[in-house]
Amino acid sequence: MTKTVTGCMIIIGNEILSGRTQDLNLAHLAKELNELGVRMVEARVIPDIEETIIATVNECRAKFDYVFTTGGIGPTHDDITADCIALAFDVPLEMPPEVVAIVSRREAPPEVMESRLRMARIPVGATLIDNPSGGPPGFQMENVFVMAGVPLVMQEMVSTLDGDRIKGTAPVRSRSIGAYLGESQVAVRLREIQEEHPDVDLGSYPFYRKDGYGTNLVMRGTDEDELEVMCEKVRQMIIDFGVEPLSE
Amino acid sequence: MTKTVTGCMIIIGNEILSGRTQDLNLAHLAKELNELGVRMVEARVIPDIEETIIATVNECRAKFDYVFTTGGIGPTHDDITADCIALAFDVPLEMPPEVVAIVSRREAPPEVMESRLRMARIPVGATLIDNPSGGPPGFQMENVFVMAGVPLVMQEMVSTLDGDRIKGTAPVRSRSIGAYLGESQVAVRLREIQEEHPDVDLGSYPFYRKDGYGTNLVMRGTDEDELEVMCEKVRQMIIDFGVEPLSE
Repeated sequence: MTKTVTGCMIIIGNEILSGRTQDLNLAHLAKELNELGVRMVEARVIPDIEETIIATVNECRAKFDYVFTTGGIGPTHDDITADCIALAFDVPLEMPPEVVAIVSRREAPPEVMESRLRMARIPVGATLIDNPSGGPPGFQMENVFVMAGVPLVMQEMVSTLDGDRIKGTAPVRSRSIGAYLGESQVAVRLREIQEEHPDVDLGSYPFYRKDGYGTNLVMRGTDEDELEVMCEKVRQMIIDFGVEPLSE
Repeated sequence: MTKTVTGCMIIIGNEILSGRTQDLNLAHLAKELNELGVRMVEARVIPDIEETIIATVNECRAKFDYVFTTGGIGPTHDDITADCIALAFDVPLEMPPEVVAIVSRREAPPEVMESRLRMARIPVGATLIDNPSGGPPGFQMENVFVMAGVPLVMQEMVSTLDGDRIKGTAPVRSRSIGAYLGESQVAVRLREIQEEHPDVDLGSYPFYRKDGYGTNLVMRGTDEDELEVMCEKVRQMIIDFGVEPLSE
């Protein structure tokens, strides 16, 4: 089995922790990382507190191959991510002329422009992450990718990440089959199938619908042939129980 | 300012990290904890891996006042949360008769019942968390609350938590005002207002609608009077900019 390339996401924002805003970025990034051959193995949601951001970034960048942050790169007092990344890496911030040009494209009174220019502050040594939505860019500092929290902007930034920048392994593929069977009914046979294929991750997830309850069985791995073999065993198990396999 | 009582959520599940399933439990729990006077200050999403679960639980239960886990308490091979909590606390698992009674209420063939009885395994020393949905309960081990991952079941369990069990402070209250003003426009004045009220958390969140873009300003704190004063300053700021304050 090839080594897994690991990714960790750090979601920065009091609005997520208070329950006010539903995070949508984790699921999006996870799927995109799959395609790049990076497996998201942890995510953390942390508040807009300097010491917490610095400590979390430093812990995670040592522990995982890639780290992705979202949130806290706007123009207001609670946007402190760039400052914290600079402190985490012990480098100063600079204002690269190309970023200043983007940020000051639209005219504004001096006070407003000053706030807006906060978004042009980039840690020395970072490379930029393009923002096709037209706003200021994100940036990459070593293995840490710093992106916006607004989902539309975040997704535009993620769309620019590629294999030149992120060195993953084979993409993780998945198969999913459902059945109107309880988890307890399939548990013993599922465990056997999992043990026969330790490199494929087999998960079972109950569902509840108007017409009854059942279980979705999800297989995830990098080897398409092995996935197919496993999938066939799961399908056969369902048929042996006398019910019909459902495609999700 | 009274001491903040802190909560940490540990979301256990490969299906969240793969992007397959959108977590909905964090936002729900955060709001319920607010009412109990507990502030969620961190959340982690981790995979179904024994060492990771044990290490994360042990780190977080030492670091935060309360820890809440979701996921991994079903009947299949990937449901290992109870085992991991027992290992984290270095206690064995037992099957309390009242939980066995709940789990074996419906008849089933021996093999199926054996899988189902996995859900009756509770660490010695834990107290139960009722499950009004009728399924097996969650449990509390010291300051760690272990609950289901299926949102409906998780919400039923959370509904049973109260001030007898969770000792919080005053609930966190919030006020929110929006305006068709860019974040950069309000940034300087917002920073001043935040500095005048350090105990209230003032966040600014851009929005994009068909009829234009703007900013939502959210204030969160425990002192209702101070919230009102701050809210009035924010409202006046918006009026001074010549636009109308919007209730969200």
